[in-house]
Amino acid sequence: MPKKFTEPHTVWYYECDTTGQLSIPMLLSIVIKTSESQSEKVGRGSDYVATFGLTWVIIQYEMHINRMPKVNEQILVTTQAASYNKFFCYRNFWVHDLQGNELVLIQSTFVLMDLKNRKMSRVLPEIVAPFGCEKRTKIQRSKKFEEMTQPKMQPYRVRYLDIDSNSHVNNAKYLDWMLDVLGYDFLVTHDAKTIIVKFDKEVEYGNQIQSYWEEKAGEGTLTTIHQIKNGTTLCTEAMIDWDSASR
Amino acid sequence: MPKKFTEPHTVWYYECDTTGQLSIPMLLSIVIKTSESQSEKVGRGSDYVATFGLTWVIIQYEMHINRMPKVNEQILVTTQAASYNKFFCYRNFWVHDLQGNELVLIQSTFVLMDLKNRKMSRVLPEIVAPFGCEKRTKIQRSKKFEEMTQPKMQPYRVRYLDIDSNSHVNNAKYLDWMLDVLGYDFLVTHDAKTIIVKFDKEVEYGNQIQSYWEEKAGEGTLTTIHQIKNGTTLCTEAMIDWDSASR
Repeated sequence: MPKKFTEPHTVWYYECDTTGQLSIPMLLSIVIKTSESQSEKVGRGSDYVATFGLTWVIIQYEMHINRMPKVNEQILVTTQAASYNKFFCYRNFWVHDLQGNELVLIQSTFVLMDLKNRKMSRVLPEIVAPFGCEKRTKIQRSKKFEEMTQPKMQPYRVRYLDIDSNSHVNNAKYLDWMLDVLGYDFLVTHDAKTIIVKFDKEVEYGNQIQSYWEEKAGEGTLTTIHQIKNGTTLCTEAMIDWDSASR
Repeated sequence: MPKKFTEPHTVWYYECDTTGQLSIPMLLSIVIKTSESQSEKVGRGSDYVATFGLTWVIIQYEMHINRMPKVNEQILVTTQAASYNKFFCYRNFWVHDLQGNELVLIQSTFVLMDLKNRKMSRVLPEIVAPFGCEKRTKIQRSKKFEEMTQPKMQPYRVRYLDIDSNSHVNNAKYLDWMLDVLGYDFLVTHDAKTIIVKFDKEVEYGNQIQSYWEEKAGEGTLTTIHQIKNGTTLCTEAMIDWDSASR
């Protein structure tokens, strides 16, 4: 049985947006902190992984949000390495409030990347064994994203503080560029309920990137489709389902 | 004797820059969290202050940095309301490592602002009494900043996530715009030792602001001077003394 690992976290004012809720990019940073803690605890931290010339790269998140944690709220963040196959590791994250309500579920896909040639490596049993997760042959199909027909675009420049202590643009930052284009009036009146985001290519310090988006309104549904491009290279794409917010 | 209040904090990867050190804007967010905690503890949180139609505004920081906390380091953040006079409250912050070394000292100046007319209010004894700080008649002179002769400039747009749950652009954000202009090569090879920053006018969501800067090199000293302007309005100014970093 894969081991679950839980850490408490208090949501601080600077982790929240103007609605008083934890911001989506900060939510991602916080859950990843918990998987780093678990990895350290079982002796499989980034230093150990680097002894094989490898590093973890997150290629997909699927986030289901019942309710975003609020400013000053105490939450419990739980993670579990669910399963793996030849190339992919599947890890789940849950955020609960202190009453045990599930606020957020995040299903993520990790791969191991060779630090030298930047190519995907096979999953090494010695790296994943202590997490107690099962090897399965089945590969989860990744979601197809709808095409954009008339996208709008806003440019961003990758700034110094977009790079974190892992010396890469923090994955959460891509969400920041995707959300910002939607504007204040939209963001304070809508809550994201489901977010699927796929990371394909990295962007680097100084890059001028483009954040494309388009709204797709169906019967009682509202979805936004997003792409981050670096010139003609598609770097990240996402799909977000929204509910109207009663604030 | 003014009461000291200490909170522990662990420095996470997403709070650090690419040098593996806590970023300067994040340092400010973290120390302010501690003063908010103390205020709540003594029954003088923002809700209480709002019952007088007032809110706290920070108008100056003077930061002295011996060593920036590092990624995964446990630190202790201490705050103390030092003294006040008719209009100004002086509050100190210290960051120590677990061996008791003083890493950072921050001296700050707060004022109370009327929420309706946005004007400065007199300091009310009932708001500051529980902190145990003394009233003094002396007003601390604020530092004069050197003039810029040939400033460089980079524009920034105030983004949605620059606004925190206090519904204002987080003070730390101004430092972000000031630092970013210095560029990667400068920032990874220099450590800020003293930072004086004065907040004058707020910027708002959607504003296009300009971050001006100039280097002043003396005998063995390197200082950068900064201004954030919104059109012709000076909003924030700062002066940063730098040391070469041996990394």
